[in-house]
Amino acid sequence: MFKLYYAPGTCALASHIALEEAGAAYTTERLDFKSNQQNSPEYLAINPKGRVPALVTDRGILTETPAMLAFIAQSFPQAKLAPSDDPYAFAQAQAFNSYLCSTVHVAHAHKMRGPRWATEESSFADMKRKVPQTMAACFALIEREMLKGPWVMGEQYTICDPYLYTISGWLEGDSVDLSKLPKVADHRKRMSERPAVQKVLAEEKA
Amino acid sequence: MFKLYYAPGTCALASHIALEEAGAAYTTERLDFKSNQQNSPEYLAINPKGRVPALVTDRGILTETPAMLAFIAQSFPQAKLAPSDDPYAFAQAQAFNSYLCSTVHVAHAHKMRGPRWATEESSFADMKRKVPQTMAACFALIEREMLKGPWVMGEQYTICDPYLYTISGWLEGDSVDLSKLPKVADHRKRMSERPAVQKVLAEEKA
Repeated sequence: MFKLYYAPGTCALASHIALEEAGAAYTTERLDFKSNQQNSPEYLAINPKGRVPALVTDRGILTETPAMLAFIAQSFPQAKLAPSDDPYAFAQAQAFNSYLCSTVHVAHAHKMRGPRWATEESSFADMKRKVPQTMAACFALIEREMLKGPWVMGEQYTICDPYLYTISGWLEGDSVDLSKLPKVADHRKRMSERPAVQKVLAEEKA
Repeated sequence: MFKLYYAPGTCALASHIALEEAGAAYTTERLDFKSNQQNSPEYLAINPKGRVPALVTDRGILTETPAMLAFIAQSFPQAKLAPSDDPYAFAQAQAFNSYLCSTVHVAHAHKMRGPRWATEESSFADMKRKVPQTMAACFALIEREMLKGPWVMGEQYTICDPYLYTISGWLEGDSVDLSKLPKVADHRKRMSERPAVQKVLAEEKA
């Protein structure tokens, strides 16, 4: 039995969907970011980074979305969520998730998380203004070079799909025009039709 | 036979060391960042992100350090560079590398790469001023919570080690006091004694 710590609207959604798709036995614990619960002593004992997601397993606690997604896939091989028996195909999936994690999520984070990297209000405003441009550039690359279709890796649904769906869900708020990204828009629609996605969204929005 | 595209002083060093440790057959191609060769049409055809590293394999081209490191480890299992047969232990290694990639490298990048996320000179200067603080905080967490010793994952040398060594090599330039990080300092010394590391550094500095 796993326990997932999450907060609505965060990248924890990717792991939440993956757990559901894998058929894993899990419970969830929602953190309240408005009261800064992610930096409470209780939660810092679980994840000293003060971030979500975190996954409690019977071996210990895992963090970092790309690592958690691969772990979920490899723990439930019958769900076929990652090509773990093919190092090159697995690396392609990991490379996609690593790009989302280190470039795309980071680009988005400059809208609200400026204090992580600067001190002045003028810098935060400057960073915020650039987010539509950086997110549009990231997604233009995803549309053109990465998203094979219908799923990220092609015919097989993998752990890349809930992660892309999570981050593409931020585009509207980041003022990126989804109509210029037809493959990404089709991917969002396809994802939203999956029962696992509908179940998880209902829980996170409850 | 692999071909690694790299530039000296970048995170490509991690994959370069891993190839050497794995006993892989590989060649290297150095890019000149001063002449912006990473954004030349020739290189963008190899890696449309305009970044290093990129690894040309007989199946295709891989990017993103955490994915490349896992691929190298899994392509040369006899080198035992990752616990690929244990999903939890493998996820721990991937979580460490994902933290380096998405948080620590990103913190460092705000020193010189401000234009990625902002537009004004004043913002770049503000970001630059904060780098010693953010890098010190990241490495305090690594020292206290992550680096098991003597190697990152404990007794077994893994793909986490060349990656940590690569990024800890930036600390002095980022004005972080290594004397307050005894485990990281010991790790740097231990790494610098490895023949593979010495060989790769000699090539990158030549």
